[in-house]
Amino acid sequence: MASVFARIISGEIPSYKVAEDDNYYAFLDINPLQKGHTLVIPKNETDYIFDLSDEKLAGMMIFAKKVAKAIGKTIPCLRVGIAVLGLDVPHAHIHLVPLHSGDDLNFCNPKKHFSAEEMQGCAEAIAANL
Amino acid sequence: MASVFARIISGEIPSYKVAEDDNYYAFLDINPLQKGHTLVIPKNETDYIFDLSDEKLAGMMIFAKKVAKAIGKTIPCLRVGIAVLGLDVPHAHIHLVPLHSGDDLNFCNPKKHFSAEEMQGCAEAIAANL
Repeated sequence: MASVFARIISGEIPSYKVAEDDNYYAFLDINPLQKGHTLVIPKNETDYIFDLSDEKLAGMMIFAKKVAKAIGKTIPCLRVGIAVLGLDVPHAHIHLVPLHSGDDLNFCNPKKHFSAEEMQGCAEAIAANL
Repeated sequence: MASVFARIISGEIPSYKVAEDDNYYAFLDINPLQKGHTLVIPKNETDYIFDLSDEKLAGMMIFAKKVAKAIGKTIPCLRVGIAVLGLDVPHAHIHLVPLHSGDDLNFCNPKKHFSAEEMQGCAEAIAANL
């Protein structure tokens, strides 16, 4: 069965899309650590990020850089942090999280909740800054 | 004044070196979250990782992939996680941390302490698996 992320890419599961190209897809994390917390995934399903080819890994980081710059323009923060854990969904994903302090990348922190309208507005605002 | 990382690259400050090439340097974090916790840095001093050129950013991730594979061969773990916060030292650095659970990438956790001999042995063991 396809991972939840593959079903998001196919549109079977809706997502708050931030960016997309031929190889990568970015969308808001529905359990965000901070407003603007975004996931970047490769369209080709690979479990572990370091099992991606050098070319696909490099492309993913360059795509993530564009998305991170747009997040930084949209969400007031010190900078946009990066995390890859990969212990939950078996489809490589980079977390991009606006940081106000070093504790903001702590995945044990309680997740934030925003309305569907706030999430949609946030995704559109980031996309507009790409 | 050069950052502490620039002084590590120049050899002015000693480090437990894991890997090095013309553009990047990897060494053990002296305040590790887990045994084998490694930092990957570009030799060219840049504060924010997403201010690196696409080429330098891509090269850094490909270099980090090689190091992460060697860490994974050396340190028993579920996988090697990635974190970039960048709020402390103004020289871009990728944390590579062996993960046993999702909480292992929490920078608020108490840091682990190993003797100089253990650190040197760990760095040499990872380097031997490159």
